[in-house]
Amino acid sequence: MTAVVATESVRAVIDGLPAEIVVVDPDIVLGYARDQSGFTDNALPAAVLLPRTTDEVSACLAAAHRHSVAVVPRGAGSGLSGGANATEACIVLSLHRMTAIVEVDAVNRIAVVEPGVVTADLRARVATDGLFYPPDPGSVEFSTIGGNVATNAGGMCCVKYGVTGDFVLGLQVVLADGRVMRTGRRTVKGVAGYDLTHLMVGSEGTLGVITEITVRLLPAPRPAQTLVASFPTLDGAGRAVSGISASGSTPSMLEILDRTTVMAVDEMAKMGMGENTAALLLVQSDDVDADVVLADIAALCTGFGAEDVVVSSDPAEASMLLEARRLALPALEGLGDWLLDDVAVPRSRITDLIASVELIASETGLTIGVFGHAGDGNLHPTIIYDDSDDASRAAAMSAFDAITRRALELGGTITGEHGVGRLKTGWLSIEQDETALSVQHAVKAALDPSGILNPGAVLAR
Amino acid sequence: MTAVVATESVRAVIDGLPAEIVVVDPDIVLGYARDQSGFTDNALPAAVLLPRTTDEVSACLAAAHRHSVAVVPRGAGSGLSGGANATEACIVLSLHRMTAIVEVDAVNRIAVVEPGVVTADLRARVATDGLFYPPDPGSVEFSTIGGNVATNAGGMCCVKYGVTGDFVLGLQVVLADGRVMRTGRRTVKGVAGYDLTHLMVGSEGTLGVITEITVRLLPAPRPAQTLVASFPTLDGAGRAVSGISASGSTPSMLEILDRTTVMAVDEMAKMGMGENTAALLLVQSDDVDADVVLADIAALCTGFGAEDVVVSSDPAEASMLLEARRLALPALEGLGDWLLDDVAVPRSRITDLIASVELIASETGLTIGVFGHAGDGNLHPTIIYDDSDDASRAAAMSAFDAITRRALELGGTITGEHGVGRLKTGWLSIEQDETALSVQHAVKAALDPSGILNPGAVLAR
Repeated sequence: MTAVVATESVRAVIDGLPAEIVVVDPDIVLGYARDQSGFTDNALPAAVLLPRTTDEVSACLAAAHRHSVAVVPRGAGSGLSGGANATEACIVLSLHRMTAIVEVDAVNRIAVVEPGVVTADLRARVATDGLFYPPDPGSVEFSTIGGNVATNAGGMCCVKYGVTGDFVLGLQVVLADGRVMRTGRRTVKGVAGYDLTHLMVGSEGTLGVITEITVRLLPAPRPAQTLVASFPTLDGAGRAVSGISASGSTPSMLEILDRTTVMAVDEMAKMGMGENTAALLLVQSDDVDADVVLADIAALCTGFGAEDVVVSSDPAEASMLLEARRLALPALEGLGDWLLDDVAVPRSRITDLIASVELIASETGLTIGVFGHAGDGNLHPTIIYDDSDDASRAAAMSAFDAITRRALELGGTITGEHGVGRLKTGWLSIEQDETALSVQHAVKAALDPSGILNPGAVLAR
Repeated sequence: MTAVVATESVRAVIDGLPAEIVVVDPDIVLGYARDQSGFTDNALPAAVLLPRTTDEVSACLAAAHRHSVAVVPRGAGSGLSGGANATEACIVLSLHRMTAIVEVDAVNRIAVVEPGVVTADLRARVATDGLFYPPDPGSVEFSTIGGNVATNAGGMCCVKYGVTGDFVLGLQVVLADGRVMRTGRRTVKGVAGYDLTHLMVGSEGTLGVITEITVRLLPAPRPAQTLVASFPTLDGAGRAVSGISASGSTPSMLEILDRTTVMAVDEMAKMGMGENTAALLLVQSDDVDADVVLADIAALCTGFGAEDVVVSSDPAEASMLLEARRLALPALEGLGDWLLDDVAVPRSRITDLIASVELIASETGLTIGVFGHAGDGNLHPTIIYDDSDDASRAAAMSAFDAITRRALELGGTITGEHGVGRLKTGWLSIEQDETALSVQHAVKAALDPSGILNPGAVLAR
């Protein structure tokens, strides 16, 4: 990290803006310098802007554009790919003061919200109208809907309900030069013009700054029933996942924890799961016939060698059953410094990926736990290392690369839900062909010709 | 329509291509000159190209690019907005020979298909594996999946399952200059880079030519149960639609026919529905508790004044009940020349739209029937006029404009599923703001700098 560079350009930007939205105190600015990722660089921003309205966002960007100052947009800063990391002499634009839930329309099942709304708050608000906003990234309690949209965040619900982008109908966006546009619509269907809405979704603040979001909502789901199955072999768990998928049932949750993760959780919470557990599957169904669905899945798990299969419709008991999933990351984090990967493979290949991770762990001498969204093939291998030891850091990065490469070999993708950020720009050009990359650069140049928006995120400079 | 202009440029394009993919016979070429829309212009294409592979598509576009010849891509030509209409001295590029279903992967629930596959054929093929490709545009029996993707086609399933774009995971696309790229992925989740897949979906052949499509599939649904309710007042039907939505149930079909359409159907098929029917609702549920869902909806319809409410789980009887929906367009077509609109409004406003259409019909002296996807708010007001009578043509266009304007006033959109094509380019710039339009022009210029791809479609020249 380098010191603040309050260039003349930055001063010119700040001078034109309301004082109450400008922060230059280095102690405060420091808190906006980066997200939660490891292995990504950042600088100290020259200033932080805290706009309260779309007009203020527009004024910020128009000024930054005029003076060619880089702008790094930011939600809650909970990302894990470096997408919100400050660049040299940049301004960080935080949307966290724009927290209005502008509208909830129960008949048409839509909500209109500002980007700084914490996603859990939106879910709670619409629930009071008997409605449901499904996306539930792991960060749901503290990340903001704006960040979720900018990264197209996922979560555990996705296996049945889809990801953030599947719920976005329209946006208000401020472009790099301060111009404001509306994309999309308020109706559930609509095909007028190019899909600028989904061009913005997942663009990680490199194409525009989202200042209002129209999402579609679903009717509140039924209370889910829960199943936990413990497998003595990884292969059995993998066959169960493929079997569930092939059987045609669509659970509302289908998560997996590998042996390393189970052991870490057991060490932390003394659940007595022991070393016989090669993998744990956690399944929920909120279908009207959830008892039948889960009984079928229980039988299927048993058929593939599961030893302990527990089903519960009692919320308190279910919550206990899910404790292992909730503790997965905290338990792994407890083992040392951690580097979380985020890859997705065809769901039939998840055990191939986990087996490869076991091999990579033994080759690098590192502990690597795998947990994640089995039903989507989206896994989070979590590498435990010692950040103070250069050799361990190097081994961690080498393991990370090997895992990401393996995901591609298995027909997967380098990022299932966390985004490219600054962590995986190099990997993007391995996953995608030269033409697709050049089209993305052309789109970036068309929307942000001077390249001030989140430079270096998504596309390598 | 003007005569073939076999310019030197067109001859240069053709000369470099395999003879067996080039058609210049004017009698054959004529069949590729336009889609099924009314009120849109077209020229006679200078040639038609019928590539069989992605490489051939690439060769066609590279040559057209080199010689600055306009290329109008085409699926089955069943569009209703002029999106596939030939422009002056253009070449039409038909994808109908690329008909391979490359792969169906039942475990990972994906299919990979070429663009010329008829959508019904894809649905039938995956059904043999117990899988379901939901999108079912009215043209499902003859339109192609490539055209469906290029227009982001909808249908009756959308109310529960979503539109074509919701099922597209990845594409192979040939750019205007002949370069080939892959977008998206084969996994159900993935956020690597900008969403070029959905930038292409619905871009109506103006940004690239789609040569391969990877779609996600669902488990085969249960057989649907069917309800038909006849309302003596339009208002009652509208309240029922809002009530169904607010009740939290998600039917797999929720269609409406207005009085004019019902009368036309009755005239054609002698169903004895009579003049007391102000609106007909047709509902299906394929939920496991469909009988409960439909019983609730039946009670709700009765509560809002429905007089005849019939529910059936018998496929033959259900098919009979749905006959009125199937006959809606044919029956209206039987009344004269017809101009079909395609607007979407918030679902709470559909009866406002229908009431406005009744007013517009009486003001213009034209018969206008309304039918469509009530559950999505996506309606198809169908204007009956006399194409040989200039005054009648003018009245039809005036009614069309009034309806489209009314949809916008009600918070809706100018096109729910048919696309902008060449019919509604003027309307696009009324619905969307100047900045959104300029961004679309910038994206177009970035991907097709010489503007050879489907010029004049979507964006006005």
